[in-house]
Amino acid sequence: VSASTNEQAFADLKERLSRLSDLGRIGRVLGWDQQVMMPPGGAAARAEQLGTLGRIAHEALIDDEVGRLLEQLSGYEESLPHDSFEASLIRVARRDYEKASRVPPALSADIARAASLGHQAWLEARAESDFARFMPALERNLELKHRYVECFEPAGEAYDVLLDDFEPEMTTGEVRQVFDRLKEELVPLIAAVRDSADAVDGALAQGPFPVERQPAAVVAILTPLGFDESSWRLDPTAHPFASGSGLTDIRITTRYLEDALMGVFAGIHEFGHGLYEHGSAPELDRTPLCGGVSLGLHESQSRLWENLVGRSRPFWRRFFAVLRDAFPEALGSADADGFYRAVNKMQPSLIRVEADEVTYNLHVILRFELEQELLADRIALADLPQEWNARMDEYLGIEVPDDAQGVLQDVHWSGGIFGYFPTYALGNVMSVQIWEALRRDLTDVDDQIEAGDFAPMREWLRERLHQHGRKFTPQETLERCAGSRIDPEPYLGYLRTKVADVYGVAA
Amino acid sequence: VSASTNEQAFADLKERLSRLSDLGRIGRVLGWDQQVMMPPGGAAARAEQLGTLGRIAHEALIDDEVGRLLEQLSGYEESLPHDSFEASLIRVARRDYEKASRVPPALSADIARAASLGHQAWLEARAESDFARFMPALERNLELKHRYVECFEPAGEAYDVLLDDFEPEMTTGEVRQVFDRLKEELVPLIAAVRDSADAVDGALAQGPFPVERQPAAVVAILTPLGFDESSWRLDPTAHPFASGSGLTDIRITTRYLEDALMGVFAGIHEFGHGLYEHGSAPELDRTPLCGGVSLGLHESQSRLWENLVGRSRPFWRRFFAVLRDAFPEALGSADADGFYRAVNKMQPSLIRVEADEVTYNLHVILRFELEQELLADRIALADLPQEWNARMDEYLGIEVPDDAQGVLQDVHWSGGIFGYFPTYALGNVMSVQIWEALRRDLTDVDDQIEAGDFAPMREWLRERLHQHGRKFTPQETLERCAGSRIDPEPYLGYLRTKVADVYGVAA
Repeated sequence: VSASTNEQAFADLKERLSRLSDLGRIGRVLGWDQQVMMPPGGAAARAEQLGTLGRIAHEALIDDEVGRLLEQLSGYEESLPHDSFEASLIRVARRDYEKASRVPPALSADIARAASLGHQAWLEARAESDFARFMPALERNLELKHRYVECFEPAGEAYDVLLDDFEPEMTTGEVRQVFDRLKEELVPLIAAVRDSADAVDGALAQGPFPVERQPAAVVAILTPLGFDESSWRLDPTAHPFASGSGLTDIRITTRYLEDALMGVFAGIHEFGHGLYEHGSAPELDRTPLCGGVSLGLHESQSRLWENLVGRSRPFWRRFFAVLRDAFPEALGSADADGFYRAVNKMQPSLIRVEADEVTYNLHVILRFELEQELLADRIALADLPQEWNARMDEYLGIEVPDDAQGVLQDVHWSGGIFGYFPTYALGNVMSVQIWEALRRDLTDVDDQIEAGDFAPMREWLRERLHQHGRKFTPQETLERCAGSRIDPEPYLGYLRTKVADVYGVAA
Repeated sequence: VSASTNEQAFADLKERLSRLSDLGRIGRVLGWDQQVMMPPGGAAARAEQLGTLGRIAHEALIDDEVGRLLEQLSGYEESLPHDSFEASLIRVARRDYEKASRVPPALSADIARAASLGHQAWLEARAESDFARFMPALERNLELKHRYVECFEPAGEAYDVLLDDFEPEMTTGEVRQVFDRLKEELVPLIAAVRDSADAVDGALAQGPFPVERQPAAVVAILTPLGFDESSWRLDPTAHPFASGSGLTDIRITTRYLEDALMGVFAGIHEFGHGLYEHGSAPELDRTPLCGGVSLGLHESQSRLWENLVGRSRPFWRRFFAVLRDAFPEALGSADADGFYRAVNKMQPSLIRVEADEVTYNLHVILRFELEQELLADRIALADLPQEWNARMDEYLGIEVPDDAQGVLQDVHWSGGIFGYFPTYALGNVMSVQIWEALRRDLTDVDDQIEAGDFAPMREWLRERLHQHGRKFTPQETLERCAGSRIDPEPYLGYLRTKVADVYGVAA
């Protein structure tokens, strides 16, 4: 095979992939529009549009010619350095191609249909707090997941296949090892904090924060972090998310509540996602290498900004005045340190998305364990609520009053999404590994935060993590950035220190 | 050919066309987003997305299989009534297929590229009021238009080919006949009005109208007309337009100025477009039959609502209070009849988009004439500004001070768009034919308007015009709705009556 033939084949492949990238970004615009802007009457037509777009994109990815080009380019790939743009593009495209080719279109369509019906069943079941109404849809989703897993002939556990869609090339065993360690440490830590719950007054974080004043306050906080109107948008939605359709078209949303600061913290969280997703090197633009490499690493970035930066003492020394000026009724007589403690109050609670930094992980571990047991038929579906409630008591010491606030609280299972939850806690763990590496290189991070100078931190993250996009596996990416593969110890150390700082005691 | 074979072929064709419809609607979402929501940094990525989408849609339309199905279905089509859904779908799809198949993709790409460069050149030339800077780009656009015309081997005038893209199956000769008649009547009418210019005081329409209060006032006016938030959006943009991506996802924009009521009138105008485009019968949804049949009929609907309804005396008897309450500084001491006269002040002016009902047509006729002469090489490009200015003097008695306010004022030619302008005045003409038919059927229209009851009018338009979508040619559509093909006399009669009413004299 001559060099010029390889170059031509590579150019052909890259051209095809660039169009796939465009289709992916078009889908993101449609999805963003649907959640943020579309009148309700647009729903049916939008479903058709997304269906047509998904079908065209799927056909373009599994096109025989893509397979032929990848085949032809395998020698070329091996002749190039692993970390070169060309080798990475061929490697990642092959991975995407092979995964997409394994699932018969009819099964994908069944899964999509069951997800749509499941979502409807879940909405009704949750509204009536009636798990039994959701059971048939959940059973159907699980059945289809079994058929999905069979497409891949997994070497290890069946759950590996599901996990791989969200945290590529990490095994269930590796996650279990991390989570067992978290559980071992955090269950007693949470019990200790629960005993001194009254030591922190959370009232300062409960408003009232008049909703109409919140957007300007959030923008005032996000702007020094790196938000700017030439490339970013911030809009309100029921469920905050980050999206965008180009390296300099980044769209985040948040939710404004009168009696909580979700508007601020979800805004910072989604800012972290937006910065990572759109921080890929320009040469990766319009290729499958562009964007975040896994949901776990994505969450490491949102949580780094939300918690390690946004719930830190120096951060509120800088920004408390912004909120006090916006909300004098609630915060006029408070100070930055009191506010810092209020936004770090730790307390076991029922709802995952409202949980504090420490208890959050147990919500995730509980779901990870139940998902594996459901997939392995080790628990009967009808027993799922009891299992849920028993573990909530065991891990968090909390009693679940009804299924709406228990097993029915999250949307994921209604859409057939299994294997996603663990990435939330993996992100927490990795965020502190990355944070410690950053602090080794930038010695005066606290001063920079207090001075409102986030450029060095942003630049470090871009250089060490964001620019690589999907070039390497998530764990290779983490290793390049933080110097080690996933390790729960730094995170556990961070949580112990934080609890001690907020509660004024060694916990 | 058996019936079941025909049915299968028809189902296949319809399925392919439904996906094309989805792609078209996706393009509309992208275009709307680009103009209304996208951060400026998204421009380059959006251009790639639109390019990829356009290419996929074009390839899907001119696919050999589409040609084969159309061929196979020609006997089936002839066996069905002309106005049946099936015959109409095959007929219109064939027309779209044949037009798209005639233009080589390379020429389409050249046209798109020249349009993009031309737009940039025009922006610079207009900013410096320097026609010479725009000339090379205009020359290139014209050269490509010649090549485009050659693709179609026109039977009559070359201009017919360009016109057909916007007003299908109408000839240049037919337009010329209408426009010559308008010119004959309107040039002296305008001269007469100019002599009594002081008879109407336009100050009431010049504000101040604080911009932040305008959106609520516009929604208060549009809501009884038929705007509702379950299916519509209204947003501000630099250039008002109507779009949408489904029969019940309709998006209009307007522009709010402190010293004029463009916000209101552009809002009503775009409402008319939105109502027509999305008023197709549900069975036409996701087919090429869905939507407005021509730009002229589209403009007939926007102008009907903007001028025949929105600048009428009963309309302001109903809605003047809305504006007076919103803008007491400007309107507090005025009354509905004085306001009606102010928003109908007629005065020759330089800029087409700011022109009143009467003079507007001469702006259009001037462009129609110049376009034909340019295409026929009857005037040298370098002489275009002089030609423009001479006609502005002849038709409107107005002197053009510079090219920015003259030949460079419109965006169309920069994008290679020739043949579009005439549809603006054709729309005016047809709007009154339709209006008179409506008033024959609904005898108490003025009372309904003054009572704020627009449902009968909306229903009449839907039943007689909107529901047909693209099933018939524009002139067949007009004939079904108004009982006659295009005829300038009703419009001329309307204008004479209006001038007499506003100026209190027989003109």
